[in-house]
Amino acid sequence: MQPTAPGPTLGVVGGGQLGRMLGEAAAPLGVEVVVSDPTPDPPAAPVVSDTLHGDFDDPDAVAALADRADVLTYEIELADPDLLERVSEEFGTPVHPAPDTLRTIQDKLVQKRRLEEVGVPVPPFRAVENVDDLHDALDDLGYPAMLKARRGGYDGRGNVPIESPDDVESAFAAIDGAAMIEAFVPFDRELSVIGVRGADDRRTFTPGENVHEEEILRETIVPARVSEDIRERAESVARDVLDLMDGRGVFGIELFETDGEISVNEIAPRPHNSGHWTIEGALSSQFEQHVRAVLGWPLGATDRRGRTVMTNLLGDVEETEPAALDGVGRVLAERGANLHWYGKHEARPLRKLGHVTLTGNEEADTNELLARARELRDNCTFDS
Amino acid sequence: MQPTAPGPTLGVVGGGQLGRMLGEAAAPLGVEVVVSDPTPDPPAAPVVSDTLHGDFDDPDAVAALADRADVLTYEIELADPDLLERVSEEFGTPVHPAPDTLRTIQDKLVQKRRLEEVGVPVPPFRAVENVDDLHDALDDLGYPAMLKARRGGYDGRGNVPIESPDDVESAFAAIDGAAMIEAFVPFDRELSVIGVRGADDRRTFTPGENVHEEEILRETIVPARVSEDIRERAESVARDVLDLMDGRGVFGIELFETDGEISVNEIAPRPHNSGHWTIEGALSSQFEQHVRAVLGWPLGATDRRGRTVMTNLLGDVEETEPAALDGVGRVLAERGANLHWYGKHEARPLRKLGHVTLTGNEEADTNELLARARELRDNCTFDS
Repeated sequence: MQPTAPGPTLGVVGGGQLGRMLGEAAAPLGVEVVVSDPTPDPPAAPVVSDTLHGDFDDPDAVAALADRADVLTYEIELADPDLLERVSEEFGTPVHPAPDTLRTIQDKLVQKRRLEEVGVPVPPFRAVENVDDLHDALDDLGYPAMLKARRGGYDGRGNVPIESPDDVESAFAAIDGAAMIEAFVPFDRELSVIGVRGADDRRTFTPGENVHEEEILRETIVPARVSEDIRERAESVARDVLDLMDGRGVFGIELFETDGEISVNEIAPRPHNSGHWTIEGALSSQFEQHVRAVLGWPLGATDRRGRTVMTNLLGDVEETEPAALDGVGRVLAERGANLHWYGKHEARPLRKLGHVTLTGNEEADTNELLARARELRDNCTFDS
Repeated sequence: MQPTAPGPTLGVVGGGQLGRMLGEAAAPLGVEVVVSDPTPDPPAAPVVSDTLHGDFDDPDAVAALADRADVLTYEIELADPDLLERVSEEFGTPVHPAPDTLRTIQDKLVQKRRLEEVGVPVPPFRAVENVDDLHDALDDLGYPAMLKARRGGYDGRGNVPIESPDDVESAFAAIDGAAMIEAFVPFDRELSVIGVRGADDRRTFTPGENVHEEEILRETIVPARVSEDIRERAESVARDVLDLMDGRGVFGIELFETDGEISVNEIAPRPHNSGHWTIEGALSSQFEQHVRAVLGWPLGATDRRGRTVMTNLLGDVEETEPAALDGVGRVLAERGANLHWYGKHEARPLRKLGHVTLTGNEEADTNELLARARELRDNCTFDS
């Protein structure tokens, strides 16, 4: 597609915060965005041209999106690859990344097998169909290990740790479906690389270091506090992963660093929470890159502007209540800090409601940025 | 207003490119924007929550805006200060900057008198009621001079140069209304300072150097290629201007540099074309600052990120035609370049349709940035 104007329309399955930030990135480029979402007033709604109402796999909503859009993409793995393939054919609307890539990624077992086949390092894993499989696999892999639902998990949902043989039965019951078991990786650090496949080339951003708690991302530190060797190794593995993917777009590639080695944890076929730092921290954000890539436009520069820490604002509430963020005055007043508030109406425990990015120049002390970012975050609350 | 969430709603009179870029800046902050505009599908429409239809001085449209918004502002001087005052009182919705400041600025004669009263340097000027006044004034001020309509001019409209006594009659006829005459300033450079008045403080961005042709801004170069003395003088005059204003918000302050002296050309009570560079070139853009200021939130940092050149993309067409921008592929592929396309449906001769910003670090050569920006711009065309 030639980057001509009036701008093209991008159809996005999903209108959560990722859809919202895609809309924010598309606007300066003159690209109109239409999203579809099951929620009546999802986060993306106020910043995009139009919001269609329907489940991620609702044939009518996705067809309506394909009918209006020049290119289709998705901001959530719950999109339906078969449906996307079908409407793409019917309306002649390209879908990026390719539905087949989404299909591969949606099934964690298939994803891992694909990576293993081509020699991308992954933790040892086995398919699990029943409790007997699970016992057998654990005899090989040892304890602790992580039982993962093959489909539908995110932000730690669908992952059940198994510490000892006593946990096996209850863990399998909790997953309730097709699963895989993965050896627990005694990682030194969790890293991620945001990569983008364009029409003619692929690029990666600087590897970030991720801090998770309760399997939910809390902070990303860029550049990751690792050696140059590890950084290069992480980028190289990420490039290998990108080469396996089909179609254009941004991919979030989560990695483990263990004793100086890199292995792949998970891949997301979309902009990723651990890439939010790129909005202020890089010359072109992951969201702008995704817009450019799926439209077939030239990719932007992935260079860092300096050193950056991103921290999520999670619902610090006991139960669902109206979202009322307080304490952001200090974030707004802090030099180099940027507030991103997703406009969600309800705070729920640990729900991602916004994030704060703190940028410094190349001479900044990453640990000091992290300490300041945490202080700013801890001063914010939804608990009214 | 406490920066709490769910975010406030900002009502903006005018939905042109400035309204669009206000919407882009408001979104990450969780601020919803509603605009009113006489055009059915103005540039801001796809990136804001809602667009009300009505002239800038349409009482129903502005009342509807005041009814929905927590704070009202305007992105065009054609807003009606009396109407804004009235609806503000009726709905209890604050208006920023203060309607009285808009009133002062709308009348170029009143604006200049106000500045002169407090000792802000301005070019010599006289009020003009009729042709005799004009002749008398020109006897004092000399030729050449600039006849300016007191109201309604922008982008050079309403300004008529007078080179010699022969031009006087036709110039006055062309203005057709209340006017002022101003001595022509044989400036060395045109500069501007974007300033912002917050609840508790005021801040200025680095002075930019502006290149006009046919009285329309073509390029802004930041920092301006002037001595440190001139830079400080420009900032000091801008701060004096800000102190004169009432209410909160961003002001674009256009200046002349003549023989090492600074005088004020014109003031805009809103984000200004010569401040578009701040989107990529400063830690907080003029649009984000305006949103923060009018809501009474803490101001952001105005620090530059490096050196920046902004060039407008103007309609290079002979007559009105559908807007079809071509040649932006090179802009998108250029490292450090950012495209801003306003989504206007029609190209008209010299109409502002978008802009390109090129940023470099502090070591970058401003002249080289300018040459590259011009080349990128010249490669873009609307002339299909």
